[in-house]
Amino acid sequence: MTAAGGPARRSPVRWDGTAIEIVDQARLPATLEYLRLETVDAAVDAIRRLAVRGAPAIGGCGALAMVLGIDSALSNETDLSLPEAREIVAALAGRIVMARPTAVNLSWAVRRVAGAAAGAGSIADIHELALAEALRVIEEDREACRRIGEIGRAELAGRSTLLTHCNTGWLATLGWGTALGIVYAKAAAGEPVHVFACEARPLLQGARLTAWELIDAGIDVTLVADGAAAPLLASGRIDAVVVGADRIVANGDVANKIGTLGIAIAARRSGVPFYVVAPTSSFDPTLATGEGIVIEERPADEVRTWQGRLAAPAGVNVWNPAFDVTPAELVTAYITEVGVLHPPFDDLPTAPSPHEAARESAASL
Amino acid sequence: MTAAGGPARRSPVRWDGTAIEIVDQARLPATLEYLRLETVDAAVDAIRRLAVRGAPAIGGCGALAMVLGIDSALSNETDLSLPEAREIVAALAGRIVMARPTAVNLSWAVRRVAGAAAGAGSIADIHELALAEALRVIEEDREACRRIGEIGRAELAGRSTLLTHCNTGWLATLGWGTALGIVYAKAAAGEPVHVFACEARPLLQGARLTAWELIDAGIDVTLVADGAAAPLLASGRIDAVVVGADRIVANGDVANKIGTLGIAIAARRSGVPFYVVAPTSSFDPTLATGEGIVIEERPADEVRTWQGRLAAPAGVNVWNPAFDVTPAELVTAYITEVGVLHPPFDDLPTAPSPHEAARESAASL
Repeated sequence: MTAAGGPARRSPVRWDGTAIEIVDQARLPATLEYLRLETVDAAVDAIRRLAVRGAPAIGGCGALAMVLGIDSALSNETDLSLPEAREIVAALAGRIVMARPTAVNLSWAVRRVAGAAAGAGSIADIHELALAEALRVIEEDREACRRIGEIGRAELAGRSTLLTHCNTGWLATLGWGTALGIVYAKAAAGEPVHVFACEARPLLQGARLTAWELIDAGIDVTLVADGAAAPLLASGRIDAVVVGADRIVANGDVANKIGTLGIAIAARRSGVPFYVVAPTSSFDPTLATGEGIVIEERPADEVRTWQGRLAAPAGVNVWNPAFDVTPAELVTAYITEVGVLHPPFDDLPTAPSPHEAARESAASL
Repeated sequence: MTAAGGPARRSPVRWDGTAIEIVDQARLPATLEYLRLETVDAAVDAIRRLAVRGAPAIGGCGALAMVLGIDSALSNETDLSLPEAREIVAALAGRIVMARPTAVNLSWAVRRVAGAAAGAGSIADIHELALAEALRVIEEDREACRRIGEIGRAELAGRSTLLTHCNTGWLATLGWGTALGIVYAKAAAGEPVHVFACEARPLLQGARLTAWELIDAGIDVTLVADGAAAPLLASGRIDAVVVGADRIVANGDVANKIGTLGIAIAARRSGVPFYVVAPTSSFDPTLATGEGIVIEERPADEVRTWQGRLAAPAGVNVWNPAFDVTPAELVTAYITEVGVLHPPFDDLPTAPSPHEAARESAASL
């Protein structure tokens, strides 16, 4: 772990009292810089252009964006009625949720803040309740990451060589990570751990972020092109695959970074366990199967270019889905902060689930 | 097809009478430029740094490199005995074959030229026999591509949406291509054809070369990140996968560009036929299974960097195999210039096979 305190003490999303501070992930691995987001527009833009990414981190940024929006809309509006203020909050929630459609954590966190705000008895209370709920979302994710790391460490005891995809570390969450949280938990416990990281084209989060995080933390990492995952799995060198999730639906189908499905299929063929590692805030019990998940398609130039330089003919057609859906049957188990789960996820908190509670509250706005 | 005559009339490797001319593929898609290779060193370097790539094109370049080397070593050496000259030719062959270890076409073509040279009755004849054999290798590959295209067109009748990997077009061969030869044959016959091309990290031959070739020829192409192949196959939009081969061994296992295995596994899961398309010069009956294939590992910076710029931490460990091995059981069939084959390949020319003939001749050097 680094002199800076290691991944457990860092966060890509912080509240400084009046604005959001985020790590500008588009600039990694060259430089670690924080950006200050003072408006809802700035926060939505940061989420959309992936300066903030990773489902839990997006959720935290969205929750704080609600606070920024509430401050801006309500602080000088002493003439508003409470119903008018609630309408403004609901519209704000809708706007922020649209920034990225696939990660369920964003709508979950935004609705939690909206639901808390809906409980305010006066306009003056709205800000306070929203901020308290946003900070609770962040603190809960930090604690969820810690528990995921420990539960995953127990589940993966004796399995030291892990393959992962995209970035699921402290840069992607509000704690030390989900799939990488297990890696950090192993390292913190003094257990051997070696990570093979797929680079995750087109945006290279594995190369830029995962490799950087792990080297920074002093953990062994080997980078591979995405196409090398299948022969790596076939080689027998990998003890388990650990990936995150942007959305896990009722039957266990998982939306995650494009490339995940291919790894899951290859892992199954090679008999390597494939774990999805995510907080319960990534579960969406309102969708029965993965067919219902809206998959965000991103700009063609993410594939055509890199750092502004063309790698392909300028006008070539591109299909660039940000995510794919891995069917539940390929997933060995789901490692969460409440335990190692299997569909139909009877162990998920249900009475009421955070989703339902947030939805019901938000619906009453 | 383009005004320039279309892919059927182009070649990435030509003999201009005294030197080899090659398309500098490292500069595509920005510019189409030819490089002149006047020495064996220049030819070996071009093969090694992938300015010439694609198994059949490497074979052609290697065959012509033999001619350059023979010219240089023997033209002013009137004191040499015939046995001394034969030793020089054999050493030359060994040096060129080492440029890239996985593509069998290189050793096959070099040994053919060496074998022809071994039949010379005088030193003066060596050059003439070597050049004639090298030009025969090139002409035969051109004809093999044409036949592969037509045989593949018949095999894939009615299947218009194809997924391919890496580059197997005129830039990779001495004719219009292998897997892409089928695409060109379909287009030339006026049949509908749409190609999805994987970009093929790390060196992006799909993005840089395949997309460029197909756009240049007026053929519909859609580029995808390698990780998008599995969900694309699962979507039901792909009628067949067509890939090339760097080496096909006796049981049908196939070494091809890294990423091929993952596509083959995903195609099998989705019930999409997976064809290997290659001339018989890519078959190596001397190896029983894919386990015997030497897989070239290439420099870490191919993965760490992108167009010369770091995309990952500078010192990160990398595993960068250039190829993977797809087991025969995942291959629907092998489309060659002598027909659609299945292991154990009884239809391959065997009496004597080109390999054996070349080996026997070369062994007698």
